[in-house]
Amino acid sequence: MKKKSAIIVGAGLVGSLWAIYLAKAGYKVDVFEMRGDIRKADIAAGKSINLALSDRGWRALGQVGIEEEIRKIAIPMRGRIMHALDGTLTFQPYGKKGQAIYSVSRGGVNARLMEAAESAGTVEIHYHHKCIGADTQEGIAWFEHTKTGASMSFQADLIFGTDGAFSAIRYKAMQKLDRFNYEQRYISDGYREILLPADADGSYKLDKNALHIWPRGRFMLIALPNEDGSFTCTLFMPFEGGENSFEQLRTKEQVDVFFKKTFPDFFELMPDIGEKWGAHPLSSLAIIRCYPWSNGRALLLGDAAHATVPFYGQGMNSGFEDCRILGDMMEEYQENWAQIFKAFQQERKPNGDAVQDLSLHNYYVMRDYVADPRFLLQKKIEARFSERYPDKWMPLYSQVTFSHISYADALKVGMRQDEIIKEVMKEVVDIEQRWDSDEVEALILKKLKIKV
Amino acid sequence: MKKKSAIIVGAGLVGSLWAIYLAKAGYKVDVFEMRGDIRKADIAAGKSINLALSDRGWRALGQVGIEEEIRKIAIPMRGRIMHALDGTLTFQPYGKKGQAIYSVSRGGVNARLMEAAESAGTVEIHYHHKCIGADTQEGIAWFEHTKTGASMSFQADLIFGTDGAFSAIRYKAMQKLDRFNYEQRYISDGYREILLPADADGSYKLDKNALHIWPRGRFMLIALPNEDGSFTCTLFMPFEGGENSFEQLRTKEQVDVFFKKTFPDFFELMPDIGEKWGAHPLSSLAIIRCYPWSNGRALLLGDAAHATVPFYGQGMNSGFEDCRILGDMMEEYQENWAQIFKAFQQERKPNGDAVQDLSLHNYYVMRDYVADPRFLLQKKIEARFSERYPDKWMPLYSQVTFSHISYADALKVGMRQDEIIKEVMKEVVDIEQRWDSDEVEALILKKLKIKV
Repeated sequence: MKKKSAIIVGAGLVGSLWAIYLAKAGYKVDVFEMRGDIRKADIAAGKSINLALSDRGWRALGQVGIEEEIRKIAIPMRGRIMHALDGTLTFQPYGKKGQAIYSVSRGGVNARLMEAAESAGTVEIHYHHKCIGADTQEGIAWFEHTKTGASMSFQADLIFGTDGAFSAIRYKAMQKLDRFNYEQRYISDGYREILLPADADGSYKLDKNALHIWPRGRFMLIALPNEDGSFTCTLFMPFEGGENSFEQLRTKEQVDVFFKKTFPDFFELMPDIGEKWGAHPLSSLAIIRCYPWSNGRALLLGDAAHATVPFYGQGMNSGFEDCRILGDMMEEYQENWAQIFKAFQQERKPNGDAVQDLSLHNYYVMRDYVADPRFLLQKKIEARFSERYPDKWMPLYSQVTFSHISYADALKVGMRQDEIIKEVMKEVVDIEQRWDSDEVEALILKKLKIKV
Repeated sequence: MKKKSAIIVGAGLVGSLWAIYLAKAGYKVDVFEMRGDIRKADIAAGKSINLALSDRGWRALGQVGIEEEIRKIAIPMRGRIMHALDGTLTFQPYGKKGQAIYSVSRGGVNARLMEAAESAGTVEIHYHHKCIGADTQEGIAWFEHTKTGASMSFQADLIFGTDGAFSAIRYKAMQKLDRFNYEQRYISDGYREILLPADADGSYKLDKNALHIWPRGRFMLIALPNEDGSFTCTLFMPFEGGENSFEQLRTKEQVDVFFKKTFPDFFELMPDIGEKWGAHPLSSLAIIRCYPWSNGRALLLGDAAHATVPFYGQGMNSGFEDCRILGDMMEEYQENWAQIFKAFQQERKPNGDAVQDLSLHNYYVMRDYVADPRFLLQKKIEARFSERYPDKWMPLYSQVTFSHISYADALKVGMRQDEIIKEVMKEVVDIEQRWDSDEVEALILKKLKIKV
């Protein structure tokens, strides 16, 4: 029996993309969004928030023919540029020649996905509809209109919760179910965005085709390019504790002193940082884990199921991959949704967990290690080996960013690779001199044979 | 400025005891309970659920003069009696001579605490009041009367959430606060209660002054005495997976076969187990962790803050200890509640975590090890040493059950003790023969000196 109508709660990135998938499979889709239409918002959509789109995301977009449309607003970033305290810049390519991750504006992508969904003909997006509950068994969802206060209910064969980290569907209709595991865990760091404007002539103040990082041990600043010549920068730092924490940056003077001292090259580019400090709020960062992701006719997707901290740039990409895999399963199981939900959550839960573990891991790497000589040596050994034996060794970052290997497998392989190089660095005397020797290569090959 | 009125949400064990503490300190207290008055319930209060009260609980009761009242309904259990498959019984004392834990009925204790609270003169308990939200900053709580459907609000200087593992205060008023960490984690086992009635003449079918355990590896049955000659027994077992799981016990026949085979001596005492199987529901078990426990004028206590699985018998005891320590702080900080809340959660959070870690640890011990010869040898070595050097070594179980050492410290010391004996068992050849030798004793003394 085919089920042909669906409710999607949340018209964000994942909800809008999933609406396209469902429409292409012949479903009548009602999407409910708590906020207004992002395309009509006063503030230029997504000017201040950008995300890194990579291969998994592109593939999911490609599968429903929307890839080219998004390419138009995507800026390739071919590597990281590290900004040392003394102003020295170091470039680390993300992958091989031709590989890049892409800076896109959240609002820009969202708007294009909504347009594509609406043009599919069977998708209707309802704005200002706040989900206030659902009956997952009956496929009923209740909403309150945030402008009129009116309550209403909708019924469909399927309900998809794509309403983000603080999903109403999850909170109202799933959290209280017996044996529903749930965790919201905040990290001790917060973030604040800073818009570094374009030069007067519209040109970029920093190299456009890179992600910029100012790693400073326990905290860091990053910058991603926007289409208009500006960069959206984000400072990640502990909320409290120690001199380098947000609680120590309360006045314009404190902000100025802090930036002059810790990000001098950035301060030169943006000497009015002290005045602009309050333009964006101080925000928190959390990981959300839960299971099961489905109940009755309802399924959680994207952040609603597995929100992560942003340090691997895989939040959107993993949500888009959810859509691609769910789309594949829709065909594979011929729309037997009980089977699809079961198979989907069994396959994707370990990958949601892995994205979170990877994100936390990369946070420590970006923060603590990217400026550490031992770490850089480890990366050099790995890069050399991987270049010579590309079939035997794909670096973890490439597995995650430029492949479609499952996140869980990537994490496992990556941890093993890390172990191997660390062992080699311990076992080889004078590794600093001999890191590119045949001996090192042979040792890695031996270790790969034994244990992988 | 003294604050003199309080709302308590939940009239369970911790809420009722805390009401007594507040009343004695001069507060006007309104307690709101979702259910009806347990003292007027149709089913004899607490006949089917009993708990193990131990020293921490007694001390908290003693501090407000209710200890003697509860002693009247408490049955001492001086140790565990293990029931082997072949019917062999083994007795393991819980502590030293004179030490015991006490089987009490949940309903019986709850009723007496409510009576004591009401007799204090300034406590009013409102039944059928379901909490539907709260403003923790303003000290306002909203309720719906479950009989009339009427909504109402109450305001007080303080709000205490003692409404258990699935606390409405926590869910409605705290979970969505920024940087509120929360986790509900179900274990893969469920439980079902079984009432083993008294003999026709009212006498006990098993030794009354012990906690009975039938350890069977991946699952176990336990029994605690009730005042009327019956025992409340609980089967803990995985919900699904394998032949010994609840999903395999669906028919009377399956239940009979299972009990005959795995608990033959119990089956003899209760040959109608198959008919009685459905008398109590199959229930799940979860650990709840959250932080912070306070916001504005509201504080979570007991299960609402740190619900645990029941395997150390410390759920009620740790909740009662919350009351005692909060009572002490109320004096120490002279009712400066902002300071009290801060100090309380900082001190008690690591202990709430430790109770949960201890409970899970003891679950594995009860389930997997109590019948293991290596484990029993370890316990023998430990008991001998502890008897000879009581000032140097208090067994973990005694620290938790018969002392007032913080749970977190007990856990730390206990883990170190476990390590020491395991090291000794590895290092001493023929430990089975020489477990009570001077050599072993000297080795333990040496290890204690070095690392503790």
